[in-house]
Amino acid sequence: MVSHYSEFSAKLNVHVLFLQVCEWKEPEQLALLLDLELRATGESQHRLLQRVEDVAKYSIKTSHPRFFNQLFAGVDYHALAGRFLTEALNTNLYTYEVAPVFVLMELEVLRGLRQLVGWTEGDGLFCPGGSISNMYAMNLARYQLFPEVKSQGLWGLPRLTIFTSIESHYSVKKGAAFLGIGTDNIILVKVDDGGRMIPEDLDEKIKLAKSQGAVPLLVSCTAGTTVQGAFDPLDHIADVCEKHKLWMHVDAAWGGSVLFSKQHRHLMKGVERANSVAWNPHKMLTAGLQCSALLLQDTTNLLKKCHSANATYLFQQDKFYDVNLDLGDKSIQCSRKVDCVKLWLMWKAVGSSGLAKRVDRPEFVNVCFWFIPPSIRGKEGNKDYQDRLAKVAPVIKERMIKEGTMMVGYQPLGNKVNFFRMVVFSPLLSQKDMDFFLDEIERLGKDL
Amino acid sequence: MVSHYSEFSAKLNVHVLFLQVCEWKEPEQLALLLDLELRATGESQHRLLQRVEDVAKYSIKTSHPRFFNQLFAGVDYHALAGRFLTEALNTNLYTYEVAPVFVLMELEVLRGLRQLVGWTEGDGLFCPGGSISNMYAMNLARYQLFPEVKSQGLWGLPRLTIFTSIESHYSVKKGAAFLGIGTDNIILVKVDDGGRMIPEDLDEKIKLAKSQGAVPLLVSCTAGTTVQGAFDPLDHIADVCEKHKLWMHVDAAWGGSVLFSKQHRHLMKGVERANSVAWNPHKMLTAGLQCSALLLQDTTNLLKKCHSANATYLFQQDKFYDVNLDLGDKSIQCSRKVDCVKLWLMWKAVGSSGLAKRVDRPEFVNVCFWFIPPSIRGKEGNKDYQDRLAKVAPVIKERMIKEGTMMVGYQPLGNKVNFFRMVVFSPLLSQKDMDFFLDEIERLGKDL
Repeated sequence: MVSHYSEFSAKLNVHVLFLQVCEWKEPEQLALLLDLELRATGESQHRLLQRVEDVAKYSIKTSHPRFFNQLFAGVDYHALAGRFLTEALNTNLYTYEVAPVFVLMELEVLRGLRQLVGWTEGDGLFCPGGSISNMYAMNLARYQLFPEVKSQGLWGLPRLTIFTSIESHYSVKKGAAFLGIGTDNIILVKVDDGGRMIPEDLDEKIKLAKSQGAVPLLVSCTAGTTVQGAFDPLDHIADVCEKHKLWMHVDAAWGGSVLFSKQHRHLMKGVERANSVAWNPHKMLTAGLQCSALLLQDTTNLLKKCHSANATYLFQQDKFYDVNLDLGDKSIQCSRKVDCVKLWLMWKAVGSSGLAKRVDRPEFVNVCFWFIPPSIRGKEGNKDYQDRLAKVAPVIKERMIKEGTMMVGYQPLGNKVNFFRMVVFSPLLSQKDMDFFLDEIERLGKDL
Repeated sequence: MVSHYSEFSAKLNVHVLFLQVCEWKEPEQLALLLDLELRATGESQHRLLQRVEDVAKYSIKTSHPRFFNQLFAGVDYHALAGRFLTEALNTNLYTYEVAPVFVLMELEVLRGLRQLVGWTEGDGLFCPGGSISNMYAMNLARYQLFPEVKSQGLWGLPRLTIFTSIESHYSVKKGAAFLGIGTDNIILVKVDDGGRMIPEDLDEKIKLAKSQGAVPLLVSCTAGTTVQGAFDPLDHIADVCEKHKLWMHVDAAWGGSVLFSKQHRHLMKGVERANSVAWNPHKMLTAGLQCSALLLQDTTNLLKKCHSANATYLFQQDKFYDVNLDLGDKSIQCSRKVDCVKLWLMWKAVGSSGLAKRVDRPEFVNVCFWFIPPSIRGKEGNKDYQDRLAKVAPVIKERMIKEGTMMVGYQPLGNKVNFFRMVVFSPLLSQKDMDFFLDEIERLGKDL
């Protein structure tokens, strides 16, 4: 299957090279072209087919080998088959009776992922994205420490604090706000030159928070930061969490897939000491949006105790089968989309070894760089050098999108002005694409 | 298109009548049959195709006309085409640059839905299910009243209370727990014989809460309760909300689709006075799981102010296009699935008038009834009558699933013991199916 897959990829690669990554239109123009308005009467089949073509034409080709813009790219054809199957069967993961195959499959896929973390037992759930997985971890940590929060809310509790590095994902902030904890109660821990959390600083900040009367709740480590792709030193952080008895969560939405690789899994050494892990196979494994797993070491049914509402119309206790197979009451959702099939089918198709190869293939993943245009080369000492450099990436990005030849993201970070972050892992990517990329950046920025 | 659709439906109907709704296997047996285990090596194409067949074979046929089990059923073929397109294009709704077509389309679909609510302006978002839409409403109400909650959390705030009817959906409970408000701070309002919230009782309970020092925050009305399909009297509730200055949310996950129907939209009279509405077109409109819209009357950008985290790597402010088109910072998610295409394409195909017909078609929707087996008929006066009746539905349900002929849910409600709730709206459903259903219940329960 691996060779079949590569062959198929190669064919598609030839095909997509003729396509633009995008066909830019100004929003007003695009809205007109698409004729989006919804009317009282229906349309002919012919017209509808044209609409489908237009949607595809003006959409971004995220599977194009030169789409380097996000932490997802490429499509796996087995996963895509699994996704079509999911859509056609149109069911819901809340009870075994309406999703017998998918309930058992989700449990098995979660078991497989937990095994890679290093846990023989545990719990988990597929969630609509890593941000919500991270929120679950916060809610579980809070419930474990203060079970009364579920019924009484936060009012009777001491102020809780969450620790994460300054380069962690913004969802930690969103989660703290949503859960009523507040963004001020996130304490940002320093990172080293490589963007990795400094455990000594974590330890000090925990002590400081305690001395100020707060109750430290959870440390959210990052395995694969969004911009630089850094891995926090999990083993050292686990020591600090153990010492202070804090819930250790690992946001491995981006980096988790290294666990498939013998060569790279050392990056997450210590992950088995965590309480929870968020891992998005829709990113590096190209399982397709969305596929995001929350994994737990817990074996005490914490997930269900924390989230259950015991709705009698759905989770009747007098059913004729084992009602533990009704997964819905573990979730904050009622309807929950089936996100396991795509990963299961892809995993069956290429095996763990095939998935390991995909992780091992790229030499780099997050490649961060500045393009220094000719006009400021060698002028690092000039007063306006940083200001001028900051304006380079946005202009090159605009030109790139308007020509549609490729897509790559940029951002500032700390005291570093706008730089490109090229995400390199698409299975369709060739040496030729990389050469094209470098030449194109040069071409688009040579007059700046 | 409508006639084409019906013809297609008719053909499929003939086809599916030969299929079971389900092919029951005990979980252990099913796990063996499916061979779910994930291994190191990949498998042949032939084997994978067999797996796809098995997944379909043992999955519940939720599009079978005799699937009456949930508030979703049936598949619209235009929506399904939209779903396949979504999967193939595999992108993410957070920025205009990676989803130009879908950003504009989501805005247009939300505009169309808001128009049906009665709002010419406003805001909104597609969410992963109605439960999460309801949580957004709570968080928005909280933020509007106390913007400092985002940074400081709930500690400095007075105790907040939420009002909803005793027959509202369990997601209100889950939301209060998740947001740190606590389930004890949900105050349950009485319903009338039809299951509709009693506005006078709401008014009294709000006053009582105030007198106890709490701050009433939000009323979550239900338009289409889960079990009985009741519609709360929105206009009267709006009066109470106005009087006490509370956020009025309408959980119209199930019932919202009546807004398409001239005949039935009176059920939601007053909805235009709400602050927010949650509406799931994946239910009665058969747009496919998941398609859930949160609609807001607000025009002050509350959604973004409440949820933004201003991540510089994603929402750069020096982009060359209008960054208001980057919708991601309105959301608690980072990756957000594209859920608008299926609804847009279906709406284009049949028009608002076609969707109205689907809503008008069924005479009943939630049909709740007891099957009284021969052995207890006429024995309503017996002491054990209720106990014996309560055991009837679970047994019939077990037999029904094991034979696979049809699926319908049951539950108790208040002092009513287990009764069936038949959800009748599938576009594939015929008179013949209804006759079959009645005969089959009789056959399955005649010896009880």
